[in-house]
Amino acid sequence: MKKKIFALLAILLITQSCVTAREDYSMLETINKPQDVKSLNTKQMNILAQEIRNGILNHSNTIGGHVGPDLGIVEATIALHYVFNSPKDKIVFDVSHQIYPHKMLTGRKDGFISPINPKITGYSNPAESEHDFFVLGHTSTSLSLTTGMAKARDLNKEKYNIIALIGDGSLSGGEALEGLSNGAVLGSNYIVIVNDNDMSIAPTNGGLYKNLAELRKTNGKAENNIFKAMGYDYYYLDEGNDVEKLIETFKKVKDTTKPVVVHIHTLKGKGYEPAEKNKEFYHWQLPGFMDAKQVSPQESYNSITADYLLNKKKSVKNILAVSPATPGATGFTPEFREKMGSNYVDVDIAEQHAIGFISGAAKNGAEPVLAVMSSFIQRAYDQLSQDLALNNAPATILVFCGTISDMDMTHLGIFDIPLISNIPNIVYLAPTTKEEYTAMMDWSIKQNKYPVAIRVPAGNVISTGTKDKTDYSQINKFKMTHKGEKVAIIGEGNFYYLALDTQKEIKNQLGIDATVINPVYLSGIDKQMLEDLKQNHSIVITLEDGCLDGGFGEKISRYYGNSDMKVLNYGADKEFTDRVPLKELYQRYRLTKEQITDDVKTLLDK
Amino acid sequence: MKKKIFALLAILLITQSCVTAREDYSMLETINKPQDVKSLNTKQMNILAQEIRNGILNHSNTIGGHVGPDLGIVEATIALHYVFNSPKDKIVFDVSHQIYPHKMLTGRKDGFISPINPKITGYSNPAESEHDFFVLGHTSTSLSLTTGMAKARDLNKEKYNIIALIGDGSLSGGEALEGLSNGAVLGSNYIVIVNDNDMSIAPTNGGLYKNLAELRKTNGKAENNIFKAMGYDYYYLDEGNDVEKLIETFKKVKDTTKPVVVHIHTLKGKGYEPAEKNKEFYHWQLPGFMDAKQVSPQESYNSITADYLLNKKKSVKNILAVSPATPGATGFTPEFREKMGSNYVDVDIAEQHAIGFISGAAKNGAEPVLAVMSSFIQRAYDQLSQDLALNNAPATILVFCGTISDMDMTHLGIFDIPLISNIPNIVYLAPTTKEEYTAMMDWSIKQNKYPVAIRVPAGNVISTGTKDKTDYSQINKFKMTHKGEKVAIIGEGNFYYLALDTQKEIKNQLGIDATVINPVYLSGIDKQMLEDLKQNHSIVITLEDGCLDGGFGEKISRYYGNSDMKVLNYGADKEFTDRVPLKELYQRYRLTKEQITDDVKTLLDK
Repeated sequence: MKKKIFALLAILLITQSCVTAREDYSMLETINKPQDVKSLNTKQMNILAQEIRNGILNHSNTIGGHVGPDLGIVEATIALHYVFNSPKDKIVFDVSHQIYPHKMLTGRKDGFISPINPKITGYSNPAESEHDFFVLGHTSTSLSLTTGMAKARDLNKEKYNIIALIGDGSLSGGEALEGLSNGAVLGSNYIVIVNDNDMSIAPTNGGLYKNLAELRKTNGKAENNIFKAMGYDYYYLDEGNDVEKLIETFKKVKDTTKPVVVHIHTLKGKGYEPAEKNKEFYHWQLPGFMDAKQVSPQESYNSITADYLLNKKKSVKNILAVSPATPGATGFTPEFREKMGSNYVDVDIAEQHAIGFISGAAKNGAEPVLAVMSSFIQRAYDQLSQDLALNNAPATILVFCGTISDMDMTHLGIFDIPLISNIPNIVYLAPTTKEEYTAMMDWSIKQNKYPVAIRVPAGNVISTGTKDKTDYSQINKFKMTHKGEKVAIIGEGNFYYLALDTQKEIKNQLGIDATVINPVYLSGIDKQMLEDLKQNHSIVITLEDGCLDGGFGEKISRYYGNSDMKVLNYGADKEFTDRVPLKELYQRYRLTKEQITDDVKTLLDK
Repeated sequence: MKKKIFALLAILLITQSCVTAREDYSMLETINKPQDVKSLNTKQMNILAQEIRNGILNHSNTIGGHVGPDLGIVEATIALHYVFNSPKDKIVFDVSHQIYPHKMLTGRKDGFISPINPKITGYSNPAESEHDFFVLGHTSTSLSLTTGMAKARDLNKEKYNIIALIGDGSLSGGEALEGLSNGAVLGSNYIVIVNDNDMSIAPTNGGLYKNLAELRKTNGKAENNIFKAMGYDYYYLDEGNDVEKLIETFKKVKDTTKPVVVHIHTLKGKGYEPAEKNKEFYHWQLPGFMDAKQVSPQESYNSITADYLLNKKKSVKNILAVSPATPGATGFTPEFREKMGSNYVDVDIAEQHAIGFISGAAKNGAEPVLAVMSSFIQRAYDQLSQDLALNNAPATILVFCGTISDMDMTHLGIFDIPLISNIPNIVYLAPTTKEEYTAMMDWSIKQNKYPVAIRVPAGNVISTGTKDKTDYSQINKFKMTHKGEKVAIIGEGNFYYLALDTQKEIKNQLGIDATVINPVYLSGIDKQMLEDLKQNHSIVITLEDGCLDGGFGEKISRYYGNSDMKVLNYGADKEFTDRVPLKELYQRYRLTKEQITDDVKTLLDK
């Protein structure tokens, strides 16, 4: 089973392009620290900008990465380092997926010029450089973090500039708006640079962004101004890719003694025509995107989701597909969105609102289906608990990329089971096939009793070809798919197939015909089945594609605590892993059929 | 051990008052449904308002409740029901702690007039009335919920008014700001009433509230206007307690075809002089507050916290006490705040920001200590994970009211262990005495390696009188306080004393000298100690004052899964309990020494 997240995120139409990364980095080669930028003239800085762009494209085309956000922020980053003195002055990049230019100017160009040093991450990372202050990857955090930094600076009676660079959609997240309000009353030096490229990952939608558009249209002079309303001094620069004007603007706010917003209008994808034209598509790209031929779309759980909802709309007129600004990662392509029309809403990056929104819609007679990434549903725990679960709002949440992976430590998909399955009332389902997945969506949309979350399978589509007729209203009823003896293997969702493989391995090696169970439900246990297992089983194995702590397996262990049943829980350790190859992680967590069989053998030999 | 949350929340100086609730409800007696309000004239509505105030005071003085928020919103509620047609028009009260007047007008006055019907809750509750649409109790949710309701209405091609009433501090929460942005682009009827009483629970602080103040000062005409900036039509009414003017204003926006904000200026505590004068103190009150004599302050974990931090400030100049608008519930009295000066920050209701803020401050050389309620820390899971834990920001979080309680289902304190202890890197500590608590704070403030959360003990202070010299840098080292045999009882924090009591009961009943362990750490297990227990113990009991699912005990069960050790986990079921007496809950969860001893006996007899 192919488990690379890359495959999950891939949007399938990769257009051919004639542009390729060039290999001239003669100006960039002279820059080893930010101070080196200060001796350049405008012409040299523009050459440097072009070389940085080449580095961005080379990096993303070689190992995959963020394209549009970084291309847009090149000049602003050069100007920041020209005007300010990093690391004494401290610049924090929100989300930090637009940090490549900063990395290239702070001694890390080897992460971008071939041969690429793969150790340089795609995000802010203090372990790499004194010019980075946090590990960052989730959106909307920079204002709160920098407000705290500024407060610490003031308590310690120090003087320097604190700068947050936020934008590219991240301003709409609740933490950013809370931070915007609190940063305004710091009463000391505090600089917020709003990188306004008129985009989130997808196009923006809310009132906040309508105001930014108005400000862009009026060269910053619109009567209504969210930043002034919050209490900030305000500067607008329409030419956000003009390094000279950026320098001029930043000089105005350097050493300010009060909170100030510098609103700069940049072009996402600047300098690479395909990315300028198709901003959403080139937000992030796979290796080889510059050279790739058009490929035919294959069936994926993303396309299954979109097809399912489009079809459902024919019979359920009030179906409501919702995305918190990550439509491309969940099958909600521009084509899908157009076809859904008013039955689709993108709420911007605002997961808390998304959960409140679907809870309200579900309680008032719509059939909402939210598609969200495992790593980002974390931003809405309280809403899952209070807005959704406490009200038994019968909404459907599709959780994508919930899986152990080789991703960056900021984007792990292993915490959704502990997060969701320990909240009362929510039914959390783990399908193992296409047919189970669509049958679960069918059930969830039809019923009006439970909030339902479905952990969308990771990896390639597995189809039985036979309609799934399970009655999912029998909450917590596990499926015993093979009845054996002595050993029972409970394999959750993605790991159901590991359960099958392990069953065979145990048979081959130990001659035991083990029972196999697809638990279906992650939020509860089938007490009757577990009790029945006691009759002719002595070992129960749980396999879950997520963090063990607080997870599904521990519920089974607790159940058997007062009995003679031995329980072996397998899953990920409670740790932030950073781009560790999947094979290595499986080995570390003993998630191979051989290791599990060894453990069973050891236990039987005791 | 006294466990009532009341005791925890109590601010200790209860002032004497000569005002008492009157018993004349002749006008209110004629109101059985909202429509009955429509036939009243202004004079009658003002009489009704006075009687509703009496009901609010009678309710809170009899069984405890929210005083100031409800007194302030009386006229607005009457006007809403005069103008709109509930339940066809749908009004959602944010936080819903200002819903008493609405309840009195919608057939539930028996919850307020003596003899009080205790079944009527203090919050919005659809089970009570068709005029309530959600169970609500956490702040900042109304805009997202109503935006979803409006979207469902539009999909179903229905026509009526959707009204969110938000304010009293709840506008600063991230979900509210996300909702404000998204509500603005609904393109259909949507009415947001901002109840601006210039207060949160405590005074407000952020830029958002500075803008509201500016709008109040200019009768709504200030150049900067956060609501207009977001894209709303905007109406201001300074006389927010004038029923006639409220009616006039609401009539203007009724049946609007676009999103509109009505900003009304009300007086928190209106009509009860002590509450008008001391708005923070009378936000919520204990039974008997109107008749109470001044009582001497007693030592509590709240006062210990405040005293500790004030003393610490003498040696640690950059200590930073932080509250997300709940200072009174965590010992941060007005006197404390004044003494702390710039070493104290109230970030308004904004827990996400609070965690980002302390993470930034901790990484930039301050010593932040955040005091937060168990039920509200839920609003910041992603920030705990990304801003704090991933960055190993050495901040300290004090979690108050983490305990099984008889509270409303919206305010349970049982989910903080599953929430916090399953996030990597965070050290979650559970002190059992005053001395452990202060020693843990000492250690946490001094060290720079871990993010630390401390579960502040619930109930009365227990003091050993002896300085605690434990080295808390020995992460996950449990304390074995009594070495016995056969049975080991691990009692977390508040339940350490239940462990001691159970030890005695087991000795008396079964003649077994059980081992007692204070685990100290909720975020990990002491593998060495657990391993050693295997030598002469066959049963391990875990007691935790929180939800079993995803909690501390399950980690112990998982550890022993492959061994002969029997494990019995005790704690709360995964459920939302609503004002269930504590004794009943303990009985239900078998959290009494007698029940536990019975279970041990049963297991031994097997």
